[in-house]
Amino acid sequence: MNLSHLVSLADLSAGQITELLDCAEALRPQALSGSSQRAALQGKSVCTLFFEPSTRTRSSFQLAAMRLGADVLGFDASHSSGSKGETAVDTMRNLEAMGVDAFVVRTSVDGQLGDLIGAAQTSTRFINAGDGRSNHPTQGLLDMLTIRQHKGHDFSRLKIAMVGDIRHSRVARSDLHALKALGCGEIRVCGPKALMPEDATLDGCRSVDDFDAAIEGVDVVMMLRLQRERMQEGLVTSLEHYHCQYGLDTRRLALAKPDAMVMHPGPMNRGVEITDAVADGPQSVIMAQVSNGVAVRMAVLKTIFGA
Amino acid sequence: MNLSHLVSLADLSAGQITELLDCAEALRPQALSGSSQRAALQGKSVCTLFFEPSTRTRSSFQLAAMRLGADVLGFDASHSSGSKGETAVDTMRNLEAMGVDAFVVRTSVDGQLGDLIGAAQTSTRFINAGDGRSNHPTQGLLDMLTIRQHKGHDFSRLKIAMVGDIRHSRVARSDLHALKALGCGEIRVCGPKALMPEDATLDGCRSVDDFDAAIEGVDVVMMLRLQRERMQEGLVTSLEHYHCQYGLDTRRLALAKPDAMVMHPGPMNRGVEITDAVADGPQSVIMAQVSNGVAVRMAVLKTIFGA
Amino acid sequence: MNLSHLVSLADLSAGQITELLDCAEALRPQALSGSSQRAALQGKSVCTLFFEPSTRTRSSFQLAAMRLGADVLGFDASHSSGSKGETAVDTMRNLEAMGVDAFVVRTSVDGQLGDLIGAAQTSTRFINAGDGRSNHPTQGLLDMLTIRQHKGHDFSRLKIAMVGDIRHSRVARSDLHALKALGCGEIRVCGPKALMPEDATLDGCRSVDDFDAAIEGVDVVMMLRLQRERMQEGLVTSLEHYHCQYGLDTRRLALAKPDAMVMHPGPMNRGVEITDAVADGPQSVIMAQVSNGVAVRMAVLKTIFGA
Repeated sequence: MNLSHLVSLADLSAGQITELLDCAEALRPQALSGSSQRAALQGKSVCTLFFEPSTRTRSSFQLAAMRLGADVLGFDASHSSGSKGETAVDTMRNLEAMGVDAFVVRTSVDGQLGDLIGAAQTSTRFINAGDGRSNHPTQGLLDMLTIRQHKGHDFSRLKIAMVGDIRHSRVARSDLHALKALGCGEIRVCGPKALMPEDATLDGCRSVDDFDAAIEGVDVVMMLRLQRERMQEGLVTSLEHYHCQYGLDTRRLALAKPDAMVMHPGPMNRGVEITDAVADGPQSVIMAQVSNGVAVRMAVLKTIFGA
Repeated sequence: MNLSHLVSLADLSAGQITELLDCAEALRPQALSGSSQRAALQGKSVCTLFFEPSTRTRSSFQLAAMRLGADVLGFDASHSSGSKGETAVDTMRNLEAMGVDAFVVRTSVDGQLGDLIGAAQTSTRFINAGDGRSNHPTQGLLDMLTIRQHKGHDFSRLKIAMVGDIRHSRVARSDLHALKALGCGEIRVCGPKALMPEDATLDGCRSVDDFDAAIEGVDVVMMLRLQRERMQEGLVTSLEHYHCQYGLDTRRLALAKPDAMVMHPGPMNRGVEITDAVADGPQSVIMAQVSNGVAVRMAVLKTIFGA
Repeated sequence: MNLSHLVSLADLSAGQITELLDCAEALRPQALSGSSQRAALQGKSVCTLFFEPSTRTRSSFQLAAMRLGADVLGFDASHSSGSKGETAVDTMRNLEAMGVDAFVVRTSVDGQLGDLIGAAQTSTRFINAGDGRSNHPTQGLLDMLTIRQHKGHDFSRLKIAMVGDIRHSRVARSDLHALKALGCGEIRVCGPKALMPEDATLDGCRSVDDFDAAIEGVDVVMMLRLQRERMQEGLVTSLEHYHCQYGLDTRRLALAKPDAMVMHPGPMNRGVEITDAVADGPQSVIMAQVSNGVAVRMAVLKTIFGA
């Protein structure tokens, strides 16, 4: 596959998504032990350029790059030259001039990644590690890989419920891109009105106000993280109330198919959007998601370098 | 030796402690140049998971792991997901799911390490890099190694004085575990009443109120760091007063044996618990302690991996 | 060349500077891909010991050391043991005792580097990565390398204008050391009176108050960063006024030679000391400076280790 950057899953065809998932699947045995792929990116320099902090995602990319033999440079731009008045583009171009071959970028600004790519040399590679509310493509891919491992490759037979703060979630948007591309049978979305997007994000989805109705008979429940700032913004009145209406507990989970799988992108607010019994229960695949994240990131790195 | 985790020296027999010290002694030539052991942990991922900051201890573990060829992931949990409401167990389990094989954990919470071990897979290894006031086992081991190098293997012939804030010191507790296990001849403890522990920590030790009396004729003087927060807590009235009563200077050191060795776990408060002349003098082994720390940490890493 | 430390370019002869530049020039192809020099510093431990933050300079040194195969330990002393009351010398000596072979030191305190070197073992190497207002020798070297690449090796034929806050700039001082050593034909300095040094820094330079006059007919324009704290200190009245008098725009650049090159050590304050059109224009070599920085730092590392 010819792929220079990974910005949004909306840019990829179903075939390209599947090819990346197949590559990740093949890398899984190496992903967590990491010994036999050390030559793949030897001599390449990969920089995690994070304009907002995220130690988990950064660690996953860092391990993926190390296990492919790359040199990894961590550049925490949230505490850095920004404060010296340097632009994000200048920071990137400086690191590029030092011989960084690929950037893994996390930013809170929608569109900033496009600015960086536009200002870079054509040989420099970019991977989106989360931008604004728009995209988190490696999360979308790892979610699809996890679903495929448990439910098989035919997404048309699946009913999926996505629950929570879809409006502010880049994870939700990337999952929706991928689910639609892969032809998911039915996508139900559920959450407080104030946390539902007003744009075309939900095209092709079925909005279901009541969580009990939304979850009924689904194969997959995708829970989203409730950012605590939604409280300060007045979009959610109380955590208790939110939990009552949109929290996943064992009673609700029993309404889904008996073998329904429970997903969450982490970090979890236990007792808010999900209870301990569900998060740690037999239907949870949350840790499998995390493990698949390393394999997916290795697959993306290999692909963008053509390695 | 079969050792999955290193939590407390109280869990180890004298034979096991000696075996770890012998291993560290054998590794010393490689510990500081680090070229011939690169294959030992190749492909293993070691994560320094620090819930409270400590750049020195983390650097020592990082160098030890690098010199054994491991991939090292630094995870500063004091500035991280904790602020996003994630539990310590969830942070650890996420990193474990990314393929981290061993955690080096520093925490201010007594017992937190046990919670992490209980929640982890059985194949995941843990090394305590300091927990609460309870244990700092690699510090205890490096102190024993340093004593052995200078005074020989027969601890029963040694008189040791430990001076300062024993109550709040995990270093003191680990040293006491090891000294008792190795059959130290006499352990004298000395410090302000408010900084003495009230539990069984001092069983088998001799409390001596006056520093001049405590140091008389000893082979080893182990000075402890005075945390400045003890002032705010009202446990110490002034640094000057503390220095007069419990500071080690050349006059007091002359009361010990002529070849007595002076130890300090660092970082030192020069002019408070120890004077420059003593810290940098011919009887000080403080830098040897630091060097031995790398060898001890390499030995522990090799042992828990059976490498 | 026999060089144990790199503290100041004032310590080097013209021949030594040229030898370092020749070494860097030869390393340029490897500097940015970094695959063929991995054996050079294998088994060596290089610590970036930064008492003030600078992610750019640290990243450049880190990549240089990694591409030579060294183990790199980042020690951010601005957030570290300093707060625990430990002296800089003790921090360094601890890391040295852990087997660090070379320190790359950044400090805001003039003379602190000398204290560290004086307290270290004679085999330990030191590279100045910027100290106080005095020296930033690798920046000086990379600037000379960049000039040489564009204007040839005969500095006596060159007219250079250095513009801005020379008083507080370690970059300016290191550039002046090197330009004088290499026999630069004419050095013009220009900037607000309050930002001009009163010591011997400008010996042998020509002070020109008016920027238009200073830039006329020069081969090289070296712009300096205006630290925003100069405003708070009252040394500069407004950024607009500064830009009018000392900002480099296309009109002013047209007064220099047609092939004059524009340099800036970064990070840039766009719109203050330099306009976008100039910074990103065809005469700018600012990104070449950054790339040369990696080659120069590799050359210095190889030289101090005799590798």
